[in-house]
Amino acid sequence: MELNIRLLLERGARYFPDNEIVTRLPDGGLHRYTYRVLNERAHRLASRLASIGVRPGDRVATLAWNTYRHFELYFALPCAGMVLHTVNLRLADEHIAYILNHSEDSAVFVDPDLLPTLERIAGQIRTVRTFVVLAGQVPATTLRNVVAYEDLIAAGDPGFAFNELPERTPAGMCYTSATTGLPKGVVYSHRDIYLHTITECLGDVLDVRERDTLLPVVPMFHANAWGLPFAAACMGAKVVLPGERPHAPAILDLMQDERVTFAAAAVSIGIDMMTELKRQRRDLSSLRGIMLGGSATPAAVMEYYLREFNVPIITAWGSTEMTPLATCVHIRRADLDKPPTEHIPTRIRQGIPCPGAELKVLDEEGGEVPWDDQSIGEIYVRTPWSATEYYHDARSRDGFVDGFWKSGDMSAVSADGVLRLVDRAKDLIKSGGEWISSVDLENALIAHPKVREAAVVAAPDAKWLERPCAYVVPEPGAAPSQAELRAWLEPKFAKWWLPDHYLVVDAIPKTGVGKINKRALREQVEQDIRQSANA
Amino acid sequence: MELNIRLLLERGARYFPDNEIVTRLPDGGLHRYTYRVLNERAHRLASRLASIGVRPGDRVATLAWNTYRHFELYFALPCAGMVLHTVNLRLADEHIAYILNHSEDSAVFVDPDLLPTLERIAGQIRTVRTFVVLAGQVPATTLRNVVAYEDLIAAGDPGFAFNELPERTPAGMCYTSATTGLPKGVVYSHRDIYLHTITECLGDVLDVRERDTLLPVVPMFHANAWGLPFAAACMGAKVVLPGERPHAPAILDLMQDERVTFAAAAVSIGIDMMTELKRQRRDLSSLRGIMLGGSATPAAVMEYYLREFNVPIITAWGSTEMTPLATCVHIRRADLDKPPTEHIPTRIRQGIPCPGAELKVLDEEGGEVPWDDQSIGEIYVRTPWSATEYYHDARSRDGFVDGFWKSGDMSAVSADGVLRLVDRAKDLIKSGGEWISSVDLENALIAHPKVREAAVVAAPDAKWLERPCAYVVPEPGAAPSQAELRAWLEPKFAKWWLPDHYLVVDAIPKTGVGKINKRALREQVEQDIRQSANA
Repeated sequence: MELNIRLLLERGARYFPDNEIVTRLPDGGLHRYTYRVLNERAHRLASRLASIGVRPGDRVATLAWNTYRHFELYFALPCAGMVLHTVNLRLADEHIAYILNHSEDSAVFVDPDLLPTLERIAGQIRTVRTFVVLAGQVPATTLRNVVAYEDLIAAGDPGFAFNELPERTPAGMCYTSATTGLPKGVVYSHRDIYLHTITECLGDVLDVRERDTLLPVVPMFHANAWGLPFAAACMGAKVVLPGERPHAPAILDLMQDERVTFAAAAVSIGIDMMTELKRQRRDLSSLRGIMLGGSATPAAVMEYYLREFNVPIITAWGSTEMTPLATCVHIRRADLDKPPTEHIPTRIRQGIPCPGAELKVLDEEGGEVPWDDQSIGEIYVRTPWSATEYYHDARSRDGFVDGFWKSGDMSAVSADGVLRLVDRAKDLIKSGGEWISSVDLENALIAHPKVREAAVVAAPDAKWLERPCAYVVPEPGAAPSQAELRAWLEPKFAKWWLPDHYLVVDAIPKTGVGKINKRALREQVEQDIRQSANA
Repeated sequence: MELNIRLLLERGARYFPDNEIVTRLPDGGLHRYTYRVLNERAHRLASRLASIGVRPGDRVATLAWNTYRHFELYFALPCAGMVLHTVNLRLADEHIAYILNHSEDSAVFVDPDLLPTLERIAGQIRTVRTFVVLAGQVPATTLRNVVAYEDLIAAGDPGFAFNELPERTPAGMCYTSATTGLPKGVVYSHRDIYLHTITECLGDVLDVRERDTLLPVVPMFHANAWGLPFAAACMGAKVVLPGERPHAPAILDLMQDERVTFAAAAVSIGIDMMTELKRQRRDLSSLRGIMLGGSATPAAVMEYYLREFNVPIITAWGSTEMTPLATCVHIRRADLDKPPTEHIPTRIRQGIPCPGAELKVLDEEGGEVPWDDQSIGEIYVRTPWSATEYYHDARSRDGFVDGFWKSGDMSAVSADGVLRLVDRAKDLIKSGGEWISSVDLENALIAHPKVREAAVVAAPDAKWLERPCAYVVPEPGAAPSQAELRAWLEPKFAKWWLPDHYLVVDAIPKTGVGKINKRALREQVEQDIRQSANA
């Protein structure tokens, strides 16, 4: 029997038909329906895809927020044999156009507020035949061949039967948003998504169950929202979707009002929520955990959530290539009875491989680094659910070695096998022949009460080749001095690790997915240091 | 990347090398070692298989209790490319000989106390080249070509590398012990066992984690001990193995002393343990659940464990063909806050399909029965991890229909999709054109304080064609009367369901796996009724 996304949807719909999917609407209201309705609408939609020229095997793009309609597309498209291609709506126009053309999408499903993006690039898009607006009717638009999503649903057949598909059939697609070069496409098969889902739901991974109420703040255009829509359907868990432009106050209100048990978001959102909670507290007693990802969660943030709300932060590690999870924090049986605050040193690390994942940390000669928490190497990983190539892309040759993905992430490994991400290979600072981790310095800086955000990059240096330079965004109203920041770091690091410069700035440049854009910083750091010396 | 048992073993060994595997020895002492040692010994053994004429692809039999050596074979044989063929040591000699010949095993690994079985059938075994005694040395035996297991281990290479195997490679094999006809063989691939393991470990299935201490009382020769050895290794859970001829007092001592969190056993063992606990209480505070299977657990037994030890009984349903799990009890989110005793009506049912399993209950015309808890049909089931045929056996044609296994189990389905097993198709009693469930009557009888065991079978009847007859084994010292038993059942059933005869007996005949042998009872029931009338 073939592994198939259909099995995930049908379990939720058949055995938990009354469990809810709740969506925050643009007007602040809530849309609620059940798995029974989700399932019916997914079948209705699937039955109408042929009518808009979408055929099995086609890539079909979504440009959309986390809503019930996007949730329907997660199942209707792959179960009908199409490839769900989630496009990152934060990318630059030219990257979106590149992606739509490179994947040769035959249609785009788009939220109404994102139509202007498509209107701007309409002239460059080569393969899209139909635009479907995720709404009851088509708003005024310069696009042609536009239909309303609800018209398709209304005309659809709820008795439409999904085919049995071979498990290697492509089901999903996502482009990584590199800081350099063009985006790279990754294709997920039904098998990949099925295996990732079951693995992710394990008690020793994210422990997703029917009793959960899941709030994926992580966008559905970003690595399948870390797989949570599929996990939810399979287990029949209640789902809360934060809709258009989610922000910390709205997310926290949803958590409180819908009794969310598990949320997943970027670390920056976790920090925003902390700031908001300090302003206005919420009842978070239903929460069993918040998964934060995309970058390292500072220990201070973990301590805050534990102390104030008894909520542990869950760290995992993965990537678009990995569907996306490969590792997850694990609290060992010997440590279970310790106070939760003592788990923080484990929780800020990247955990151990999920069942099924194989992981190696290799030095420059290709040998496994010793598990001494000191030696640093690059993570190579393969899993039964992850990509082994980029879609029609010559960069596959460098990205994958013997079936292992070459992650570009540098890590140490503790004696018991737990990863500690040190840096991106290209962000490590090599000063006088020794490695300095920008991430470690950033985490220490961010723990300073006057610091809201920090980024450390290599500045060119005549003597040492590279020296660390710190960019710091202060807390509102605060003005940390260079001496103050240096004194803060001094007891924590060897002297030669300490940045030579501390640049206090209003904002740090970000990439399309909200990560610090270190490439941009590296390009401007020399000039910034010069200007700061002149100021 | 191929799904593989190697991945399960290596995760436990690499990330939880110090977690323990504990075995009860014949002298009552305990053998303890760790996953590190298990892994090393599995590699050593694998390296020596060629030396005893065992080649990749060979079926290799085990005739053994639940011990660490059997646990090693669970991994060494399939990871080295052989098929782990666990033979039910309780079968009749002629069935064991049939099974060894039918599967063409090239070697047998046998516990020393089971050598006499092989000695008796040595003349009939055609393909076995080597007997390996699971001991430090070979005892006196009439068998030829016998080697000691520990000699293989001692000479083995701990650095032996397991090959990467295609996931459809056969890994395991088990024969069902039918009450009629010859045993039927089922082959499990690496993929089957991997998928079953991951599914079984889910929070909404058995919830196996590293923090667990698992006690599989269910024999390792019976449907992979319900998959628990594989689940344990993958998660790195501690394992407690009850060794040779486990009995209730020894099992309970292990539970208490090793702080077992999850045990799995036949219902009859669960009842024996209850009797023993009433005699001598144990500290079972570490237990989170006991999975009982093989037949229905009476509500009275569930109530006892909940009331006295706060331990829920976990019910699942499956078969040798299903690797073995297909369904599992599920307590819905809406019911979680209810008192555990209110979960018992759900817990005595057979649950809902595990993620990935597809299940239909079909009437005689092949239509799905309504979910009204009244209509009865036969369960058809398929999963991504279960067999689709019997090994070299023409009976596959009748056993599997369109990829679904035709279970022979009759079930009703509640409005929310929960199975309620009514009877084996062949054990249902058809009286005057209406169905009577032998299982329902047995469960009611067993709840009577004077009744220890009960079996209800169809007796031929001139007027109604079949009428129910009850066999009853009394509690020690008790002597329930026919009138007393009838009065007990009267308020619970329609009058025409009540057995016409109640035969109090010392013992009820059992099959090789300890189930009630209804076929034997049906053959003798007319005569038994006659004798009872004459007594």
